Amino acid sequence: MTDEQIEQRVHSMAVAARAASHQLARTSTDQKNRALLGLASLLETSTDSIAEANQKDLAAGRRDGLSDALLDRLLITPERLRGIAEGVRQVATLPDPVGEEMETIRPPNGLDIRKIRVPIGVIGIIYESRPNVTIDCAALCLKSGNASLLRGGKEAFHTNTAFANLITRALTEAGLPEQAVQLIPTTERYALNCLLKLDQLVHCIIPRGGEGLIRFVAENSLIPVIKHYQGVCHVYLDRKADPEMAERISVNAKCQRPGVCNAIEKLLIHAEAAPALLPRIARQLAAHRVELRVDEPAAAILARETESIAYTLATETDWTEEYLDLTLAIKVVPSLDDAIAHINAHGSGHSDAIVTADEDASRDFLTGVDSAAVYCNASTRFTDGFEFGMGAEIGISTDKLHARGPMGLKELCSYKFVIAGNGQIR
Amino acid sequence: MTDEQIEQRVHSMAVAARAASHQLARTSTDQKNRALLGLASLLETSTDSIAEANQKDLAAGRRDGLSDALLDRLLITPERLRGIAEGVRQVATLPDPVGEEMETIRPPNGLDIRKIRVPIGVIGIIYESRPNVTIDCAALCLKSGNASLLRGGKEAFHTNTAFANLITRALTEAGLPEQAVQLIPTTERYALNCLLKLDQLVHCIIPRGGEGLIRFVAENSLIPVIKHYQGVCHVYLDRKADPEMAERISVNAKCQRPGVCNAIEKLLIHAEAAPALLPRIARQLAAHRVELRVDEPAAAILARETESIAYTLATETDWTEEYLDLTLAIKVVPSLDDAIAHINAHGSGHSDAIVTADEDASRDFLTGVDSAAVYCNASTRFTDGFEFGMGAEIGISTDKLHARGPMGLKELCSYKFVIAGNGQIR
Repeated sequence: MTDEQIEQRVHSMAVAARAASHQLARTSTDQKNRALLGLASLLETSTDSIAEANQKDLAAGRRDGLSDALLDRLLITPERLRGIAEGVRQVATLPDPVGEEMETIRPPNGLDIRKIRVPIGVIGIIYESRPNVTIDCAALCLKSGNASLLRGGKEAFHTNTAFANLITRALTEAGLPEQAVQLIPTTERYALNCLLKLDQLVHCIIPRGGEGLIRFVAENSLIPVIKHYQGVCHVYLDRKADPEMAERISVNAKCQRPGVCNAIEKLLIHAEAAPALLPRIARQLAAHRVELRVDEPAAAILARETESIAYTLATETDWTEEYLDLTLAIKVVPSLDDAIAHINAHGSGHSDAIVTADEDASRDFLTGVDSAAVYCNASTRFTDGFEFGMGAEIGISTDKLHARGPMGLKELCSYKFVIAGNGQIR
Repeated sequence: MTDEQIEQRVHSMAVAARAASHQLARTSTDQKNRALLGLASLLETSTDSIAEANQKDLAAGRRDGLSDALLDRLLITPERLRGIAEGVRQVATLPDPVGEEMETIRPPNGLDIRKIRVPIGVIGIIYESRPNVTIDCAALCLKSGNASLLRGGKEAFHTNTAFANLITRALTEAGLPEQAVQLIPTTERYALNCLLKLDQLVHCIIPRGGEGLIRFVAENSLIPVIKHYQGVCHVYLDRKADPEMAERISVNAKCQRPGVCNAIEKLLIHAEAAPALLPRIARQLAAHRVELRVDEPAAAILARETESIAYTLATETDWTEEYLDLTLAIKVVPSLDDAIAHINAHGSGHSDAIVTADEDASRDFLTGVDSAAVYCNASTRFTDGFEFGMGAEIGISTDKLHARGPMGLKELCSYKFVIAGNGQIR
């Protein structure tokens, strides 16, 4: 396609999405659920056609020299497909957020003012190599009454297209407009640029991927973007931390699944607690094959140990880097206030925890740390739409506007004021 | 100042605002109210110094040939100053939104998860010629615990500076950081460009002004922007509209204050109701000196009248233009669905009303029209923070993310999840 053709195509898709969004906003919960359950069945009965499309992507990926990790992200096994279908069924069971009365206002003039939850409208999802995002996001947008424009990565193009075809079938069979979910049919970068300028048609962009993608989207979009930058999460062990709990939470938050955004990347320890706590925790972390990068006071403490513990000295970038791996930076801080200031200056506002038996310290930390989720005496690993009772999530926002932290169906909604009168004028 | 100096200055102001925001987030309601009440008193006792600064702006404005309307916007009379001070006192009486528990989640693992309202952080307000915005916005941001960076128009520079000095005094006297509210001390356009790039320090930009300003900000900002574009509001008179109510609401919505965003610009009338309704309403509107721009079916109806009514034929731009004046475009629509489609295609999503005695038509309109405020049998003029029980407003958002419609103190807040555990890990 020429640039002009791409521009026209993306524009007409957005126009169609807008029209579909008006219909979706008035669609019953039943009808939306029928489409979702139909999609789940189609996914399970289309193992072969999806495997075929997926093989094309995998073959192209191998030709292009993708890493094993990336190839694994692309791969759709029958088991993964069952999991994706199960996820869609789960979305169907969630309560419909649309139409919920959020507030009622009864001014003396007799007006009846209700704040009602409504869909946002048209949502653009920009994602990279995981093709399951096509299904997950389409399902969440559909349930919340939003039309979606999906723009996947070129590595997963064939799989995404196969998924999109099933979505179209499910929509049609449920009597819904097929433009309710549309996959942008080209992976040209220019199509993304065009989409990001359509602020008269698209209400919101949610990028899901690495920092480079998110920054590109944020810098080029005229449409409001809900960002999930990264998770530079901390555990801070206070002066009065219970040693056993401090160890358990630190090890869990780092090691249970180091590649996810709510795993910790940094451990802060109060100077008074460090001599006793640091060696035992460092030893446990080392046993989990965690690479330790420590500041000088921490190094001095570890150097005193008879049984040696491997570490390197941290550099300045270690306090802000998201490793997503079995690596942890450790710092000794002179006070609780220093811990809070360090987290606010170097963290990413995602999830941070204090371990302490001191209620004052807990309160100060929970109030003072400016992050989406702040914990006392629990692992940061709980920041998650399922754990927070949302049933599912489309992402975890590190923004402070609209939605912060896990975003479920309600966070995919806006609201309107519906006002009933009997002739009131001003 | 050189560009480099401007860039450094704006950056260091934003760094200071960020630090102040962390302190403000932990400031008690009492202390914030002390600062507000102090500011109100200072405003009332500083009539002379403010008048002096205001005279400088007015003299410069006259030299630059500003229109009378613009000069009037600049003018601060003693009476207006009392009104501004009264507004600040009112903000002090409003409930503090910060710390409010919005939701509690108790998963089976024993965690105690609370969703708590917190300030957004640092808010940039970009505005044009009305100097009262300096005080109004500073007060609302302060009460909601946000640090603010104010960037006013060059026409009001001296008045804004005088106001900012009083704010600084009030903050200091209440023991709050003076960087909690900062006026950008230059009106160079480059300072605005610099501010809009500081997405690592500033959380939100609220532009208040004409469409040109808002579009410039939206196109150049890396920071999320909450926009209030314009109010292209409609009244739709349904087949079953009560004639007297139809007339009363149409005239009020157009004429009571035509220069504001919740006044209507368009009147739609169902074809079956038009022959009886249109002449009487057109006559009333004409009596209020409203210029009528009508479509051909409406013209045909008006032409039949023996007592002639002045009108011109509407052109295509009349369906989207915001006149902010005694002008009204009138269209005859064949059905309710056409009215809804017309409003969704041509309106600005601000405030739209139906007049009808038919409950089905009312429900369809209220659900189908995609606007911040939708009315049945009431004037659109009620879309306002005070009318909606917010006590005050910083603007009316036509965006669908974060806040839609009037924005009060709650809408100047974000939230965080505060989680208390007793050692939980995953």
